[in-house]
Amino acid sequence: MSNIYNTHLDKTAANFQALTPLSFLERAAMTYPHHDAIVHGDLRYTYEEFYSRCRRLASALVKKDLKKGDTVAIVAPNIPAMLEAHYGVPMMGAVLNTVNIRLDAAGIAFILDHGEADVLIVDREFSSVVKEALTICDDKPYVIDIDDPAYEGGELIGEIDYESFIAEGDPNFAWEWPSDEWDAISLNYTSGTTGNPKGVVYHHRGAYLLSLGNAVTTSMNQNPVYLWTLPMFHCNGWCFTWTISAVAGTHICLRKVNAENIFKACTEYNVSHMCGAPIVMSMIVNATDQERQELANRVSFFTAAAPPPAAVLAAMDTAGFDVIHLYGLTETYGPATINAWHSEWDDLPDDERAHIKARQGVRYPVLEGLSVRDPKTMAEVPRDGETIGEVMFRGNVVMKGYLKNPDATDEALAGGWFHSGDLGVWHADNYIQLKDRSKDIIISGGENISSIEVEDTLYQHPAVATAAVVARPDDQWGETPCAFIELRDDADAVTEQDLIDFCRDRIARFKCPKHVVFGELPKTSTGKIQKFKLRERVPD
Amino acid sequence: MSNIYNTHLDKTAANFQALTPLSFLERAAMTYPHHDAIVHGDLRYTYEEFYSRCRRLASALVKKDLKKGDTVAIVAPNIPAMLEAHYGVPMMGAVLNTVNIRLDAAGIAFILDHGEADVLIVDREFSSVVKEALTICDDKPYVIDIDDPAYEGGELIGEIDYESFIAEGDPNFAWEWPSDEWDAISLNYTSGTTGNPKGVVYHHRGAYLLSLGNAVTTSMNQNPVYLWTLPMFHCNGWCFTWTISAVAGTHICLRKVNAENIFKACTEYNVSHMCGAPIVMSMIVNATDQERQELANRVSFFTAAAPPPAAVLAAMDTAGFDVIHLYGLTETYGPATINAWHSEWDDLPDDERAHIKARQGVRYPVLEGLSVRDPKTMAEVPRDGETIGEVMFRGNVVMKGYLKNPDATDEALAGGWFHSGDLGVWHADNYIQLKDRSKDIIISGGENISSIEVEDTLYQHPAVATAAVVARPDDQWGETPCAFIELRDDADAVTEQDLIDFCRDRIARFKCPKHVVFGELPKTSTGKIQKFKLRERVPD
Repeated sequence: MSNIYNTHLDKTAANFQALTPLSFLERAAMTYPHHDAIVHGDLRYTYEEFYSRCRRLASALVKKDLKKGDTVAIVAPNIPAMLEAHYGVPMMGAVLNTVNIRLDAAGIAFILDHGEADVLIVDREFSSVVKEALTICDDKPYVIDIDDPAYEGGELIGEIDYESFIAEGDPNFAWEWPSDEWDAISLNYTSGTTGNPKGVVYHHRGAYLLSLGNAVTTSMNQNPVYLWTLPMFHCNGWCFTWTISAVAGTHICLRKVNAENIFKACTEYNVSHMCGAPIVMSMIVNATDQERQELANRVSFFTAAAPPPAAVLAAMDTAGFDVIHLYGLTETYGPATINAWHSEWDDLPDDERAHIKARQGVRYPVLEGLSVRDPKTMAEVPRDGETIGEVMFRGNVVMKGYLKNPDATDEALAGGWFHSGDLGVWHADNYIQLKDRSKDIIISGGENISSIEVEDTLYQHPAVATAAVVARPDDQWGETPCAFIELRDDADAVTEQDLIDFCRDRIARFKCPKHVVFGELPKTSTGKIQKFKLRERVPD
Repeated sequence: MSNIYNTHLDKTAANFQALTPLSFLERAAMTYPHHDAIVHGDLRYTYEEFYSRCRRLASALVKKDLKKGDTVAIVAPNIPAMLEAHYGVPMMGAVLNTVNIRLDAAGIAFILDHGEADVLIVDREFSSVVKEALTICDDKPYVIDIDDPAYEGGELIGEIDYESFIAEGDPNFAWEWPSDEWDAISLNYTSGTTGNPKGVVYHHRGAYLLSLGNAVTTSMNQNPVYLWTLPMFHCNGWCFTWTISAVAGTHICLRKVNAENIFKACTEYNVSHMCGAPIVMSMIVNATDQERQELANRVSFFTAAAPPPAAVLAAMDTAGFDVIHLYGLTETYGPATINAWHSEWDDLPDDERAHIKARQGVRYPVLEGLSVRDPKTMAEVPRDGETIGEVMFRGNVVMKGYLKNPDATDEALAGGWFHSGDLGVWHADNYIQLKDRSKDIIISGGENISSIEVEDTLYQHPAVATAAVVARPDDQWGETPCAFIELRDDADAVTEQDLIDFCRDRIARFKCPKHVVFGELPKTSTGKIQKFKLRERVPD
């Protein structure tokens, strides 16, 4: 409809530009050229150097005949080349595919073929598995080796090493601003707790917005010091690869994530922020006295994947870390909800605070909608903290879709919402809380059992280190809960019956495990328990 | 060009929504429903109340037959109704026109007619001038009175009072998400140091981005306490009207801005942030012992318009305020550059720090380009801190254009950059610094004289409170500098020759004022000195 406000008030180059997180790096290099952008052991790059290395990479890729919409894959840990790829690759219009470094050769080969990688950058640490993957995949990419002196071992398997490759590039390369903010910036294969990996495509608009969203949501100051314990291959490090440039922070790289290195980095560089899966919190709270160090300043620790239990929160607090609970999926660029804290909760007893902090919370300001719905009717569930529905997202930080998979894309985005596959409830105060993956609901005698509820109960037992509960087929009940348990190293002896009794004292009898299996649990490379593997292991 | 990344990966309602700052309020109301959103004397509205009052307003406007693209004007100080208008009006697709409260009747009438206001909301404090404006303007809008008990005097001149009007609206109104983020959200007439006011049109996309940009650039925490000393009618309060919702802060309203009220509010509410023109800093540093109070926490003070002199910075620091220097224009939604601070500058002597802080700095992360160019050739000036060019902006926080003024729009946005009309230099470290408005350059004997440089020199004189330098026509030299001076109340006697001599000791002789005029300076409603009025007053 025409009105005075849309007449002769059109988009021009002066007032409309594609949103892209690449602009953050240019700004940081202009504003803080001599500030440390990246620290990797003894190696330091200022923002000026970081920016020019990224432009070299972009330029070298153009010289190698790469074009807009081509794919550059990378298999590398959290090191400078990985960060550079996050800028250098999209700076010439190609799409960055960060490959999970814990995959086997077949998994990597699948991704290289499906993503149609034209170039593959690989760190020596992973040369063996990648070499094997290259013998399997149909189309061989051009291979560039990262020959990091900080790592010993492995071999060079490519045509050129990374430093020589970018040396051919122009440090003043006029990089290509995306012509459309809907253009793809990266490709992230879901690590897959179920089924085949799908290639999640991110665009510049979403990456830009989630990057700003991270900074605003987490109240990040200018010039933070960010420690890389979250793998950058995972949702592009929840987009913190780009966020840190927006606030001109310093990336502290960490090739090997363990307690000693975390505490060392925190004290040496005055780390202000870090992200990590529960496994990283485990390292911190279980650090030996020798590994542990006194921190000069408190560290904001963003976690996701599983709600932190009260004991872990208390131990993190004592160790000097403030835990903030986020939640999201690969399809939402990483975190898209936050357990936004209320100051009045500070005074609650530890247990209650942990209970409240366990909730996945509310939408990021850059996510336009968060909802719990009945996936069949698309009706919102009542905000009663009881009725289970599917958690759904809508907005600009939802993926472009799955690569070469229109059916899965249509299904995931049906009805104007992204269907997460996670089941949850909506509390009266508008905070959501996960109850389970759709597949993880156990239906026993027609009653739904939340495996999370059973796991939470098991975690209260002092001997339990890790608990996972899946359905076991049962002739009488349809399904019954079967628990898989990792015990603490220092735990007293505990039997199957002990744990079943422990649960019976605390939750409804029908929810209690009928079987308990002890042993190590299979986990994905990002630390998620692989329940589909456990389902194959339930006792007859 | 078709590639695998733009095939079957289209925009849907699930992954693409128009950017709008209105979404921040919905989120704040969902997340912190019982948190104070607005404090106005004894009146407090929680976010739940604020949100439902805005929806009532939107709903009532729909009932009044307002449609998308219609205009709602408001003449009001920094009070709750003003904030509500920032959400309620665009929530039903209309455009908010905040009118400068210091305009005369003719000025207001011009704006009402030019902006085609359908509805006018007016506070009793301004009933007299608005009543007169309504007798002048061609088309009479529907008038709604704000009958604020906190103000005594004035009269009700409209058809209905604001509370009765919104009482007719639905508090659960399903507000209209903009169909296009390029849709207009507000209309701001430039206060005009030169010529006729122009109607600057903002869109939802820009308002959203500048709102986030404010939060990120200024490192704003969650739940800040924001004191309103900057008029909301000015660039929508630099978009802080919307920023505060993105971080769920508390708006502290202040009908009357003076030293006593500022200190009282700061201590009573633990204010964390505020914005203000230099005049507000003047109030703070010149506060009497009676007005002044000890602050419990430091306040971040964002200023723009004129660089703060060293003495003012030091006095602000002592009073408990950290001054951050921003710069922008109505056409850039308010601030779009920041004097991004480097920690290594902390240790410099006061004078040097003030010198560095005087620079307008670098682009906001949400501005895509900032440049100093020759407006004729559009070539960038060298980054030498010497060569004067025109400051230019490009990006998503540049206005949509001037309402019903295609020529001015085309001219302002020519060549892919917004031409600010401000003259400046580009320093070697990429920071820009203003030297003058185009019209404020004095050309004497063929040499350019920056009036700012002469003013800076005059400000160093202990007796000078305010200085403004303009060109005086001169037969021999073409032009010569003429200084207008406001003396400090407590200043010793000073003569014209004293000040001329003072300048001659410090800057080139041809730059020194040939004439000095003492007396009060004419200022715009936002505190800018009106040089065009001074030019009429230069002595023969």
